[in-house]
Amino acid sequence: MWIQRQVDLVARPRGFHLVTSEVVEALPELAGIRIGLLHLLIQHTSASLALNENASPDVRRDFESWFNAAVPERAELWTHRLEGTDDMPAHIKAALLGPSLTLPITDGRLALGTWQGIYLGEHRNHGGARSVLATAWGE
Amino acid sequence: MWIQRQVDLVARPRGFHLVTSEVVEALPELAGIRIGLLHLLIQHTSASLALNENASPDVRRDFESWFNAAVPERAELWTHRLEGTDDMPAHIKAALLGPSLTLPITDGRLALGTWQGIYLGEHRNHGGARSVLATAWGE
Amino acid sequence: MWIQRQVDLVARPRGFHLVTSEVVEALPELAGIRIGLLHLLIQHTSASLALNENASPDVRRDFESWFNAAVPERAELWTHRLEGTDDMPAHIKAALLGPSLTLPITDGRLALGTWQGIYLGEHRNHGGARSVLATAWGE
Repeated sequence: MWIQRQVDLVARPRGFHLVTSEVVEALPELAGIRIGLLHLLIQHTSASLALNENASPDVRRDFESWFNAAVPERAELWTHRLEGTDDMPAHIKAALLGPSLTLPITDGRLALGTWQGIYLGEHRNHGGARSVLATAWGE
Repeated sequence: MWIQRQVDLVARPRGFHLVTSEVVEALPELAGIRIGLLHLLIQHTSASLALNENASPDVRRDFESWFNAAVPERAELWTHRLEGTDDMPAHIKAALLGPSLTLPITDGRLALGTWQGIYLGEHRNHGGARSVLATAWGE
Repeated sequence: MWIQRQVDLVARPRGFHLVTSEVVEALPELAGIRIGLLHLLIQHTSASLALNENASPDVRRDFESWFNAAVPERAELWTHRLEGTDDMPAHIKAALLGPSLTLPITDGRLALGTWQGIYLGEHRNHGGARSVLATAWGE
């Protein structure tokens, strides 16, 4: 059993955002999979998907602070500057966190840990809506 | 053919640990898969799974040193401090390395490179036992 | 439907390289998959696979600069030095970016975003040819 569908995440400000509900609600067919997997690919190179703490908003704020310090926007560091000083750091952050997640499904639901949620890492100042291609398969 | 099973990794001290044997021995059904994949998800947000050098313990020690320097525990960096100064750095390290691995299976065995082994990154001082949800499928 | 095949990437100099065509041309059977996934595992611990911007060579050059600054070769940082000063940093870089990609297939083609391409991260000075084990499955 295969399901493949594009999920469009609404535009969000730069930073880390919890999008578990938005993703799951767009994929009602997951309920029909007893054992399987869900693969998500964000089809962009300056935004990322990650799995982390789903409770405290200050965790997501600290993610943004750390990544901004680790990959600074100082123009002299970069040769790729055409699209603005936030662009090249966004590519590096996206590669560090990765563009995809593969998540197990058990009895029709994502089998995440109690504290795990899906993060959208929006690394551009004005990234706009983001397309995620979701592919689920199982029995 | 689908297999899904929880694998509990015993508690380990903070640092990087080779867990290939512990994972494989918990999944004897892999022997029945000719071509397939094994997906592993660690169901926590302060520990990680990675694939790296399986021979020299000093590689794993150097991993710990680098990650400690890259994501320091200085409390003034973090707003999320309720769970101790090792907590927020653990979340960042876990996201940099990632919570899951997808590994190919060939003729009943993991088809890793000669020098590749599965690392548990234990990023908390006292993380306790860690749950991994293993899902394998193939023919 | 399962396909598993080793793809050997030709030796490249240290740095980031776009290898999408080399991978896709080695896997003509992808054309027969309507919905599915392609999993790629680089079977080495000092090279990586990533998905990022496929147009400007300066993005890949800036990747190399950032990773060299973030994971320096200064020998005093590392206890694992037997294989040269570029070796231990290569292991860390490989773990940050990851050894594998899982990519959706739609109507016989990789369903990547317009600007996404597959990067080989060659983190050794003389890494040689690199083996990738490709596994595709779908309907």
